[in-house]
Amino acid sequence: MSKAKGKPNAMTPSSSLAGSAMPSRLAIDHVEPEIDEGLSAIKRVAGEEVRVFANIYPDGHDLIGAALCFRHASEEDWHEVPMQPLGNDRWVGTFVVKSLGSYFYTLRAWVDRYASWRGDFAKKVQAGRQVDVDLLVGVGLIEQAAKRADGQAGERLADWARDIRALSKTNLADALKLADDDFLVGLASRHADRRSTTMYRKELEVIVDRRKARFSAWYEMFPRSASPEPGRRGTVKDVEARLPYVAGMGFDVLYLPPIHPIGRSVRKGKNNNPHSGPDDIGSPWAIGSEEGGHKSIDPRLGTLEDFRRLVAKTQEHNMEIALDIAFQCTPDHPYVKEHPEWFRWRPDGTVQCAENPPKVYQDIFPIEFENENWQQLWEELKSVVLFWAEQGVRIFRVDNPHTKPFAFWEWLIREVKAQYPETIFLAEAFTRPNVMYRLAKLGFTQSYTYFAWRNTKWDLTQYFTELTQTEVREYFRPSLWPNTPDILT
Amino acid sequence: MSKAKGKPNAMTPSSSLAGSAMPSRLAIDHVEPEIDEGLSAIKRVAGEEVRVFANIYPDGHDLIGAALCFRHASEEDWHEVPMQPLGNDRWVGTFVVKSLGSYFYTLRAWVDRYASWRGDFAKKVQAGRQVDVDLLVGVGLIEQAAKRADGQAGERLADWARDIRALSKTNLADALKLADDDFLVGLASRHADRRSTTMYRKELEVIVDRRKARFSAWYEMFPRSASPEPGRRGTVKDVEARLPYVAGMGFDVLYLPPIHPIGRSVRKGKNNNPHSGPDDIGSPWAIGSEEGGHKSIDPRLGTLEDFRRLVAKTQEHNMEIALDIAFQCTPDHPYVKEHPEWFRWRPDGTVQCAENPPKVYQDIFPIEFENENWQQLWEELKSVVLFWAEQGVRIFRVDNPHTKPFAFWEWLIREVKAQYPETIFLAEAFTRPNVMYRLAKLGFTQSYTYFAWRNTKWDLTQYFTELTQTEVREYFRPSLWPNTPDILT
Repeated sequence: MSKAKGKPNAMTPSSSLAGSAMPSRLAIDHVEPEIDEGLSAIKRVAGEEVRVFANIYPDGHDLIGAALCFRHASEEDWHEVPMQPLGNDRWVGTFVVKSLGSYFYTLRAWVDRYASWRGDFAKKVQAGRQVDVDLLVGVGLIEQAAKRADGQAGERLADWARDIRALSKTNLADALKLADDDFLVGLASRHADRRSTTMYRKELEVIVDRRKARFSAWYEMFPRSASPEPGRRGTVKDVEARLPYVAGMGFDVLYLPPIHPIGRSVRKGKNNNPHSGPDDIGSPWAIGSEEGGHKSIDPRLGTLEDFRRLVAKTQEHNMEIALDIAFQCTPDHPYVKEHPEWFRWRPDGTVQCAENPPKVYQDIFPIEFENENWQQLWEELKSVVLFWAEQGVRIFRVDNPHTKPFAFWEWLIREVKAQYPETIFLAEAFTRPNVMYRLAKLGFTQSYTYFAWRNTKWDLTQYFTELTQTEVREYFRPSLWPNTPDILT
Repeated sequence: MSKAKGKPNAMTPSSSLAGSAMPSRLAIDHVEPEIDEGLSAIKRVAGEEVRVFANIYPDGHDLIGAALCFRHASEEDWHEVPMQPLGNDRWVGTFVVKSLGSYFYTLRAWVDRYASWRGDFAKKVQAGRQVDVDLLVGVGLIEQAAKRADGQAGERLADWARDIRALSKTNLADALKLADDDFLVGLASRHADRRSTTMYRKELEVIVDRRKARFSAWYEMFPRSASPEPGRRGTVKDVEARLPYVAGMGFDVLYLPPIHPIGRSVRKGKNNNPHSGPDDIGSPWAIGSEEGGHKSIDPRLGTLEDFRRLVAKTQEHNMEIALDIAFQCTPDHPYVKEHPEWFRWRPDGTVQCAENPPKVYQDIFPIEFENENWQQLWEELKSVVLFWAEQGVRIFRVDNPHTKPFAFWEWLIREVKAQYPETIFLAEAFTRPNVMYRLAKLGFTQSYTYFAWRNTKWDLTQYFTELTQTEVREYFRPSLWPNTPDILT
């Protein structure tokens, strides 16, 4: 006997039919777009269309009607637009997303008895068959539609049925013509019997972002290098002075690598030297010192006040600041003392540093996500993103997201966008294709690509065909960096 | 706020993490074969392989292990076979189905900490790094594996850990070599930490049929035409006499069109004449008279006893009888009086006959499946199939299945196969491709095809590519009739 666990829609053998509802006569399948069975959302920007295709078909030869249903997550009721048949049981319908956040869409279909009757009836008339009883069948269907319709529509349908019935006794030709009236046929169709309507078994999600999610031009700048005077370290204020220069080139995003305090105890020197001198300033990605962690600004770069002012000034130049989210710590980061359980300890009592053998990053402790206190860790990291969102930042470039759990990002991005739906997350993942696509599916707004390594015509054609002509285009927004601080092909 | 109805796997925003289990680090997707999200089963015959592919990948760079799990529906516990990586996160595993009925399969994957450690460790050794602490990390992992393993395996692993630890203090080179022992590495892998094992979220079904479901050669014979004497009507006994002739040509299925009593009151004459004379015998598909319905044999063809004898004799010739299931009635069928609600009545008090405008089949009443008493109808029709199964018939050619509800066939075929898993149902549907494929997906064992109309090389190449090179091959078994009694191209 089958357990039928894998078959939620199938009746279990030996189950009694008594008391069960009459199953649907319609199948709805091969819905597009639909990513991973609807477990992942598709993406759009406000004002764009969502065009939905599906195979919709009943048993037998009846004609059917179908509608595309959609609603914003904030709405309870569905909007409904009629779908059009494309032939071979394929249907299409379209709606436009207007507000940020999530929309849902699904499909409805039903047997259209009047349209089915009308199709068969026309063939019988053409074949010269006696049709007086058939005409009464059609009149009966119109009368049923009249009962379902409200007010004026109901009256129109009732009048129509009465007129056909009367004419059929005196002038069959005129009755036939009247039964075929386009306006009234449409009215009957709109009031078709929906009792046996089949609803598609899933609600599919669209995540709607703002326009910049789809296209933006990023300029990367290290604040410490923004000084106009050789020999003096740059500051956030120096960045402010460079805004007209960057905006003048047409960029609309100014991206700053991490601006937090840099670790001291195992700071690296020049050219990856594991020992630093007193003037070495270390890597901005070596985050955390006695001066603070991910919610602090390196005092050498300025104050939080300076930073908020930079955010505002950047907007005056029609640009936005993008910040770097790099969830990793130096040995001096406050987290290491406060939450030793968030790091991986070795048998000799040291913490495992970041490695990509044979490369070693002695100045960086990766966070151990598989720890007993993971819930508190996730909440703390979320608070980091929200902290910078509260300073006015709405774009985050996420460093190495593929070395943290998928579920963490899915949760974090949803949480942040629930408060700030206009937030953009760019995934800095150069890794295996499945992993890059998974990060986009779970919520990243934009994604780094292999563009830097696709340099011939053939390479580019292949890659852009994949990005634009397959279902990838529904959820993966490619960000085309020709180079980065550590990649120059 | 999202309702997240369409996102069963996503955490709802603002949900608290407290108390929830640590989410999986692994993704499993793009499983093949998997038909319509696993709502439809794939098909095999006993002794065949099921080869399963999937994308399986964790975040980060850890190595993983994966297994294909399968069980017959009658079994509680899973069998497990290791999967092999094919590159680019694609994995494959294979199992063989041996018994008739349903099998289920699913996938498991886990992070293999020892294999991950070993891979990184080898790179560090190669780079000439100091590895004594790293070696102790590996020893720790072996010790954990030893605790998970039973009896001898546990002892072997514990010994191994102790030996490496001891050697590492005296002879690091030998310790390194020992840590790389292939047999022990395999043993550690088999006892990897499965606590965080990720199970694929679905159990997929395989319907296993007997060999004849995959290939058979059908011979169609009208018993009334089986008489050796011109002018005398043939009988079931005459069919028996023809068995050596049919078997001699190499056929293994002898298919009989309906053998039930034929309606009398509106019997058709020759050449579709709506009026019959006293010697006209009518269409075998016009089922039902005062002499009985779908569970009776036309007395002119013989008795049930004759029929059972034919079934047995056919087996002696290494053939099987296939019967026709045509769920439709003449006006004289007992069902019309006993269950008037199973037919569609017209405003003039007559029953709607079968039509495919402009064609009319006055001698046939289609069954109205959308009636209030549908449960009783379904049970009665099931009892028809079971009746003939009890007479020894295990192959049914189903007439026009596409004009009856999909859910009806899905239910009926499961019910019959639960009692007689060796039963074969051939769908006689020449209709739209989606409908033909849907019937195969819901359970039909074999299907008529467009073969009769595919006559050029290009046609045949296209069609057989579709049937054999796409997912269609997993559930649709093409039956290649070059012609039928009413189709000759």
